[in-house]
Amino acid sequence: MKNRKKVEGCKVAILMGSDSDLPIMQKAFVVLEEFGVNYCVTVASAHRSPGYLHGFLDKCEQEGIAVYIAGAGGAAHLAGVVASSTVKPVIGVPINSKLNGLDSLLSTAQMPFGIPVATVAVDGAANAAMLAVEILAVADKKLQSKLSKKRVEMETAVIKKAKNLKV
Amino acid sequence: MKNRKKVEGCKVAILMGSDSDLPIMQKAFVVLEEFGVNYCVTVASAHRSPGYLHGFLDKCEQEGIAVYIAGAGGAAHLAGVVASSTVKPVIGVPINSKLNGLDSLLSTAQMPFGIPVATVAVDGAANAAMLAVEILAVADKKLQSKLSKKRVEMETAVIKKAKNLKV
Amino acid sequence: MKNRKKVEGCKVAILMGSDSDLPIMQKAFVVLEEFGVNYCVTVASAHRSPGYLHGFLDKCEQEGIAVYIAGAGGAAHLAGVVASSTVKPVIGVPINSKLNGLDSLLSTAQMPFGIPVATVAVDGAANAAMLAVEILAVADKKLQSKLSKKRVEMETAVIKKAKNLKV
Amino acid sequence: MKNRKKVEGCKVAILMGSDSDLPIMQKAFVVLEEFGVNYCVTVASAHRSPGYLHGFLDKCEQEGIAVYIAGAGGAAHLAGVVASSTVKPVIGVPINSKLNGLDSLLSTAQMPFGIPVATVAVDGAANAAMLAVEILAVADKKLQSKLSKKRVEMETAVIKKAKNLKV
Amino acid sequence: MKNRKKVEGCKVAILMGSDSDLPIMQKAFVVLEEFGVNYCVTVASAHRSPGYLHGFLDKCEQEGIAVYIAGAGGAAHLAGVVASSTVKPVIGVPINSKLNGLDSLLSTAQMPFGIPVATVAVDGAANAAMLAVEILAVADKKLQSKLSKKRVEMETAVIKKAKNLKV
Amino acid sequence: MKNRKKVEGCKVAILMGSDSDLPIMQKAFVVLEEFGVNYCVTVASAHRSPGYLHGFLDKCEQEGIAVYIAGAGGAAHLAGVVASSTVKPVIGVPINSKLNGLDSLLSTAQMPFGIPVATVAVDGAANAAMLAVEILAVADKKLQSKLSKKRVEMETAVIKKAKNLKV
Amino acid sequence: MKNRKKVEGCKVAILMGSDSDLPIMQKAFVVLEEFGVNYCVTVASAHRSPGYLHGFLDKCEQEGIAVYIAGAGGAAHLAGVVASSTVKPVIGVPINSKLNGLDSLLSTAQMPFGIPVATVAVDGAANAAMLAVEILAVADKKLQSKLSKKRVEMETAVIKKAKNLKV
Amino acid sequence: MKNRKKVEGCKVAILMGSDSDLPIMQKAFVVLEEFGVNYCVTVASAHRSPGYLHGFLDKCEQEGIAVYIAGAGGAAHLAGVVASSTVKPVIGVPINSKLNGLDSLLSTAQMPFGIPVATVAVDGAANAAMLAVEILAVADKKLQSKLSKKRVEMETAVIKKAKNLKV
Repeated sequence: MKNRKKVEGCKVAILMGSDSDLPIMQKAFVVLEEFGVNYCVTVASAHRSPGYLHGFLDKCEQEGIAVYIAGAGGAAHLAGVVASSTVKPVIGVPINSKLNGLDSLLSTAQMPFGIPVATVAVDGAANAAMLAVEILAVADKKLQSKLSKKRVEMETAVIKKAKNLKV
Repeated sequence: MKNRKKVEGCKVAILMGSDSDLPIMQKAFVVLEEFGVNYCVTVASAHRSPGYLHGFLDKCEQEGIAVYIAGAGGAAHLAGVVASSTVKPVIGVPINSKLNGLDSLLSTAQMPFGIPVATVAVDGAANAAMLAVEILAVADKKLQSKLSKKRVEMETAVIKKAKNLKV
Repeated sequence: MKNRKKVEGCKVAILMGSDSDLPIMQKAFVVLEEFGVNYCVTVASAHRSPGYLHGFLDKCEQEGIAVYIAGAGGAAHLAGVVASSTVKPVIGVPINSKLNGLDSLLSTAQMPFGIPVATVAVDGAANAAMLAVEILAVADKKLQSKLSKKRVEMETAVIKKAKNLKV
Repeated sequence: MKNRKKVEGCKVAILMGSDSDLPIMQKAFVVLEEFGVNYCVTVASAHRSPGYLHGFLDKCEQEGIAVYIAGAGGAAHLAGVVASSTVKPVIGVPINSKLNGLDSLLSTAQMPFGIPVATVAVDGAANAAMLAVEILAVADKKLQSKLSKKRVEMETAVIKKAKNLKV
Repeated sequence: MKNRKKVEGCKVAILMGSDSDLPIMQKAFVVLEEFGVNYCVTVASAHRSPGYLHGFLDKCEQEGIAVYIAGAGGAAHLAGVVASSTVKPVIGVPINSKLNGLDSLLSTAQMPFGIPVATVAVDGAANAAMLAVEILAVADKKLQSKLSKKRVEMETAVIKKAKNLKV
Repeated sequence: MKNRKKVEGCKVAILMGSDSDLPIMQKAFVVLEEFGVNYCVTVASAHRSPGYLHGFLDKCEQEGIAVYIAGAGGAAHLAGVVASSTVKPVIGVPINSKLNGLDSLLSTAQMPFGIPVATVAVDGAANAAMLAVEILAVADKKLQSKLSKKRVEMETAVIKKAKNLKV
Repeated sequence: MKNRKKVEGCKVAILMGSDSDLPIMQKAFVVLEEFGVNYCVTVASAHRSPGYLHGFLDKCEQEGIAVYIAGAGGAAHLAGVVASSTVKPVIGVPINSKLNGLDSLLSTAQMPFGIPVATVAVDGAANAAMLAVEILAVADKKLQSKLSKKRVEMETAVIKKAKNLKV
Repeated sequence: MKNRKKVEGCKVAILMGSDSDLPIMQKAFVVLEEFGVNYCVTVASAHRSPGYLHGFLDKCEQEGIAVYIAGAGGAAHLAGVVASSTVKPVIGVPINSKLNGLDSLLSTAQMPFGIPVATVAVDGAANAAMLAVEILAVADKKLQSKLSKKRVEMETAVIKKAKNLKV
């Protein structure tokens, strides 16, 4: 098994604001593993550990991370802070909160001009990983084929569910 | 001047649900031109012109469009429908509406597993273009440099505003 | 017992975005059975299974489905996509979600001009079926009588509850 | 020109809670006229004129109105009250308000079991008329053809806008 | 024990849209009993049992009911319908719902000119009863004294809680 | 003309948090004058002028004010503070604000147990006055007749609007 | 152990609208104890116990309380009422409620000019205490050092969590 | 006139995310000048100019700034980023936005444990200044007296408005 805390050799870096976000964020791991995309994971608070965060991001930039995924809840600034430190695409996952994730969604999506965050659904870590794969696949025909195959599988799965429906 | 309606030779395809969205969406044009990224533009309603939309998307897929940007308001399904037709990254721009864009934002961002839409801020067409450039730059060092240079320019512009502040 | 997956001979087609929507959507089955209205059911994701969805809808159109009911949650595009493929009335059921169904409701109701979706309450599958029956009854006096009788029954049930109130 | 206040001979009855709703609701008139559907119009407050409202509804029921359209804002009860007086389909138009129509939308859509209201978008009177035509068309092949033709026209209009786009 | 279903001799009539609202609404009973105010209770749906509702209200008007309390959830029209049938004060209790009672609150409070509903907090049945007592007390010095005494008791209770606080 | 700033001889006291609320609140004056109900008016901020507010309220209590109407926006505490100082009914008018009056509505309606505020619609000052008249009318048959007459007039006005509708 | 109900010798006074708020508010106690800041605690309802509240506040002012923390839910007026009675900084903690704390947050934050409330997150009592310490530290170098040390500890804790992450 | 861009000798530093926020933020200047509190102002985007921002903040920390005020709109991260760089109190002003400031308010207030932001109302820059003065006054009796005097003036102003009310 890989050590998912090492940045070296990874394409996608996954950050979460708190280790309590792990049950949501690990849905992204499953997807990236399915597509054979190397990723690394850390916990880094934009507010409580800015030094550690920027150290981690510097490392990521040196090692050539291609896409970032950042999950955070409440006044969710993590994705925005990552985005301001890199010109690589940053995907934001708004984590569910006391206000049903509305605060997380708005804090992640409503970014000002110049520093975009590619926001997915509340708790949408799996889709964040899908989007990361799509971004990597822009210049990777093999990954594109895998994505197309996955689409067929997803459609097949829906059709199977339709067939097995107990009605 | 380029004919922006031709798909051939473009990297980014921009779709809007209605021509009334043009004043918002053209903020994306400015950014893409600044970065020298070829793009094409069309009006296509997911609901009123599904045939035309899918014809346009087929053409885009054949011509190798790398990133899609789709802007729509209200029950904004356009980005989602585009995303379900391609494995390329799709960026959704929620266009302001009677409900202040809340309906547009939720309809664009809250996508189910498998078909992500990279959602930006309400009326955030310029940032959608920035994100598209960032995605293209993942495999294009030159574009990466331009983005880094743009970041410096943006910071310089802020500093200039700070200096010129009339206080 | 009828095979509810067969489209042939049905008046109402019920689609749900995921089989996890079944506990909500089957409240519609009970109502349609009570009124003796033939219906068919499938699972079809607007995003993950567009091919299967359109195949199903083509079949429905050929077989003369009169009314569609589509239930979906989050960025709930299913009803809108169905509506763009038919000129038959389409009833949308916003399924409860992380944002308490507000996203589902807005994505279903806020449709642009030309392609209406008859939206009912969040999780309102039973009422979607009632509405379907009302639509069929417009040209079916017998069904109209059944509806009127049902109204009397509903009033009687309320009165009975009033009588049995433990106060 | 027809007298649109007469109920006799009409298929669709349009009610609005206040004459200030006319600029929104008359968008429905245009659509119904385009489809050659006879309609009648009145102003009737569920709260201020319950007697007049029920008199009007009794007349409608006698004259065989097939579909109702009711537009109201704020605590928008009109459509619900109409729906509780008839087993014909009732379409609710939430009219924009101080709270951006959110109150109107929720008051119209969130109906309890038994008495559905087919809710369209905030200020969506034109779509309410489209939906009324779709409902009438269920048992009227000619109207169905007109609707299909309208769909083609709408798609053509979008394509034309795409062609004329000034980009 | 009194028969709380009899209208005769009551000052306050309490209506609820469904018997599932009883656990909330009975908090009003406790308050009215504490103040020795006679009340009667029924279940009456504005939509499903308009005939029964209006029969009940006619009875109430004949028997000289002074204040109405109506609790309902979702598209909560009950209080508004009661208010349109009487010139007595009507207090609306928005009952919690799928949308956290926001729909109930807006449907109850946002009444149009002429037909006010005195809206209390979501699930605020006890306060509805307090308000009813305050209204009755306007012309009843004895009840006013009881209210003043109750205020003292409430303050005393808070002070006691402050004293007993385990800190 | 009466001096509306004098408390003596008044039945209804109207308070507003700021004189900028006057255009909204004076809609209440018209209604009270129509019903011949004596009222007095002041500006009193719950936060900026607590001393003046409590002085005014003491005066009101001595002079036998029967009903209070309090209008305020934002974190609208005025009605709640008034309600905590009297056992007379207090009607709250949430004044429109930056957040479309949602903050004003919630701050006014969501009162804790014991101290109810009879909340009307956002900017609903006229209905606040109607409610005040209804409360006074509980023990005043003459006022009850006037209210009943007003109801007839309102219905007549609606019918007239229906007749004059330009359709 | 200190008697936390005594005001004498305290720097921070903590008020809560109800003893049911204790589980949230006591998170503030832990923080203040960690920083060695003396505090006192009471339960005081702005509405049900205004006399007791103002007595407590008078005592606080005499004893030289430097910062207030007030936690309340729903139409949360407590912090605002405290703020109108003192020129010391008042920190408001919106307590979670039926509306997910949105009502509490808006009632606490949207204060009118002149009487600010320093609002923290919904249920953010621990952060309210942190803010109180920061305010006291403005004129207390020792406390500033403790805060800086705490920041280091928090960063260390995040780094430890990153290291211990099970991925 | 002072040069308000110099940090030296200032007690309060005011930051705004964009120079378009100046019309709102300068309401803070008036208040600070009234209280004779030295302040400095800059424009600094948390996202577009992180380097400049941290340079400015380092300068502020060296010069002994006692309180920060940060105004920003949309995904308003500025106050949070400032707060994570200092242990001085940070006051956040949510600036009005496309979503009526709801996004700004939630992004500013919903901070995670450890890094509080003292949030004021949407566009509440004047109150942010009042709060800053209150914080400085904790250890400055003279400033406390000025604040108490200001409170008297505010009450007097309200009373004057009450007297001058044209009713």
